[in-house]
Amino acid sequence: MPSATAPHSEASAVAGVIAMARYAGERHWVPATSGNFSVRIDDRFAAVTATGADKANLTEGEVIVAEIAGPKHARASAEAPLHLARYAADPSIGAIAHIHTLPATLLSRRHAGKGVLRLEGWELLKAFTGVTTHETVLDIPIVPNEQDTEHLAAHVEIRLKEAGPVPGYLIAGHGLYVWGATVKDAIRHMEAFDFILTAELSEENAK
Amino acid sequence: MPSATAPHSEASAVAGVIAMARYAGERHWVPATSGNFSVRIDDRFAAVTATGADKANLTEGEVIVAEIAGPKHARASAEAPLHLARYAADPSIGAIAHIHTLPATLLSRRHAGKGVLRLEGWELLKAFTGVTTHETVLDIPIVPNEQDTEHLAAHVEIRLKEAGPVPGYLIAGHGLYVWGATVKDAIRHMEAFDFILTAELSEENAK
Amino acid sequence: MPSATAPHSEASAVAGVIAMARYAGERHWVPATSGNFSVRIDDRFAAVTATGADKANLTEGEVIVAEIAGPKHARASAEAPLHLARYAADPSIGAIAHIHTLPATLLSRRHAGKGVLRLEGWELLKAFTGVTTHETVLDIPIVPNEQDTEHLAAHVEIRLKEAGPVPGYLIAGHGLYVWGATVKDAIRHMEAFDFILTAELSEENAK
Amino acid sequence: MPSATAPHSEASAVAGVIAMARYAGERHWVPATSGNFSVRIDDRFAAVTATGADKANLTEGEVIVAEIAGPKHARASAEAPLHLARYAADPSIGAIAHIHTLPATLLSRRHAGKGVLRLEGWELLKAFTGVTTHETVLDIPIVPNEQDTEHLAAHVEIRLKEAGPVPGYLIAGHGLYVWGATVKDAIRHMEAFDFILTAELSEENAK
Repeated sequence: MPSATAPHSEASAVAGVIAMARYAGERHWVPATSGNFSVRIDDRFAAVTATGADKANLTEGEVIVAEIAGPKHARASAEAPLHLARYAADPSIGAIAHIHTLPATLLSRRHAGKGVLRLEGWELLKAFTGVTTHETVLDIPIVPNEQDTEHLAAHVEIRLKEAGPVPGYLIAGHGLYVWGATVKDAIRHMEAFDFILTAELSEENAK
Repeated sequence: MPSATAPHSEASAVAGVIAMARYAGERHWVPATSGNFSVRIDDRFAAVTATGADKANLTEGEVIVAEIAGPKHARASAEAPLHLARYAADPSIGAIAHIHTLPATLLSRRHAGKGVLRLEGWELLKAFTGVTTHETVLDIPIVPNEQDTEHLAAHVEIRLKEAGPVPGYLIAGHGLYVWGATVKDAIRHMEAFDFILTAELSEENAK
Repeated sequence: MPSATAPHSEASAVAGVIAMARYAGERHWVPATSGNFSVRIDDRFAAVTATGADKANLTEGEVIVAEIAGPKHARASAEAPLHLARYAADPSIGAIAHIHTLPATLLSRRHAGKGVLRLEGWELLKAFTGVTTHETVLDIPIVPNEQDTEHLAAHVEIRLKEAGPVPGYLIAGHGLYVWGATVKDAIRHMEAFDFILTAELSEENAK
Repeated sequence: MPSATAPHSEASAVAGVIAMARYAGERHWVPATSGNFSVRIDDRFAAVTATGADKANLTEGEVIVAEIAGPKHARASAEAPLHLARYAADPSIGAIAHIHTLPATLLSRRHAGKGVLRLEGWELLKAFTGVTTHETVLDIPIVPNEQDTEHLAAHVEIRLKEAGPVPGYLIAGHGLYVWGATVKDAIRHMEAFDFILTAELSEENAK
């Protein structure tokens, strides 16, 4: 499926990965070298963070170019398949972020049994591309955590096909995957998820 | 009604908008490009943030000059009517901020049914212009959220006429509007609301 | 009563006031121009923040020299009597900070009826001068808030005489007064109170 | 027992101590001059923070070289024995941090009676060296607080021998000790503990 997003040079894709990583790092959303980030170059390639890097201080040498449908890159993060499967499935995606925010970790674990977290009535839902009113019901899929990321990626794609358009999903007790057409959209979606999930958690805990 | 605040040059009004926006951006009160800010120039005009800008990094080109009683400016934020209606109704207002703090969003949603949030007994109430003792009861109006901002602005003004003097109001599940005679006053009022609403939320949740 | 702390030049006392104010400002402990700070110069004089200043960006021109037992300085903060009465009563005090932290405001309001907040068993109690073990019971006085600060200062001194040695006291729904022999001690005591009161609040709320 | 970690020059060990201290200071994990840090030089010596230093602004002159099995250094922190006993007992340890995070203080006090804090099911457990899956059960020992640190260190080592491999332990109402083969590992472990303990505390409080 041809990509619907503008093709990037490798250099600009790498710069986009670094911009997302530093942004998340400053906010403490990638603790203890967790998290990973990617930007699509074209239909076949994406720039992805290498394994083990400190995302808050990411450098160009810690970003690799991975083949979307190709064999695993030697220095790819263990979670690279979760990025590449998204680019393969949805040509409208240009950038992906995986972050470990506290409310994402807590809510995904609390609602794992239901398989979904319902977001509803918050004005900031309008920050997600395509949402035009706060009177929106958004069901964010939650998948169980597992260490076989090839298998996990396949499971995620099945769940997302059922779910219809969403800006991200949760892995139980683990964190959040979020994307957008551009790096700017992906950053806005990270901020929106952070705000809404923090509000959800606070509201649930007060009940 | 002639404005009671000192007239600003366009340049100083724009600088005031940027000062408020950056101040709020540093504190994460305008997540995901939300929020907007304005400064009155005179009886007829105000400087207002344009639609879609990242408020934490706002530039001069992202501030427009809008006519208070005139037709909608092409690049005006969707929420510009909520600013302009305030300038039209109250000549003592010189600067307005719309922010999305977490406690404003949560408390406005929780108390939406009552239509009001009562603030009482906090020393910091004295930070609001005109309040001279902590033994003050301040009823902050809460209006339901809606996407037709012309209609919302008209509704807000009816509620504020009934309410008597207040330094701001809440939109349910959405955020806070706050104002002052000057940019400095509006910033002090933002800080006071942030502190008092955070305290209120914590006190309510502990009950 | 002769002061037991080293006498300061006016310049170094002013520098100490600014150091405490900026320190507290960076941590958002003086929201909306609240809070005030002082450093003793000698038996007769102290440097104190002037009224209305933004403490996070305090400048030398916003610090005045006040006579400890003299008439009110024209530009003194309304809360200056609460500083000066302490210097008059206790010659071992060299620096005083008044801050509005969230847990100080909440706990002082919650326990106002008891007139005291008991702190017990925290290792960080050892940060207070004179405390050598976590097995300490520290009863921090809480006084009701009032706007007549001369009267409030007199009431506070009566309560402190009864209480015996403590590093600070709370005003209900208002904030914290804290002191030390030096600016360094007062800053360490601010940090210790902030940590312990945050812990207390969290522990109480979980019960 | 010969050390299994690479020997450090004194200068690089001191630089490692300062790096850990500043890192923790920026995050407010060492309030009111609390906390201390060390890096092993070789089998016999370690660089350790001196008593009373402000860790957020630590300088080279505030780091001493202590003999692991030798007599107490004149300027050693009161808690130096808790560092040195660890280096003596476990040759794989190259760096140790003692920090006072809020959730470490609260959870250690809450679960002191059980003597252990169980961590289970969090993806971020994988940030600890040797942990390869979130399906791990990690029992972090909690020891009672006491001011005789020689005695406390002996007690800790008995508990750790029983516990088997763990990346740290808690002292009730006091804080966390955490270590790693290198400074980088110790910093990653601090971050992982901070995240997981914050999540644990929030999850427990919501029950």
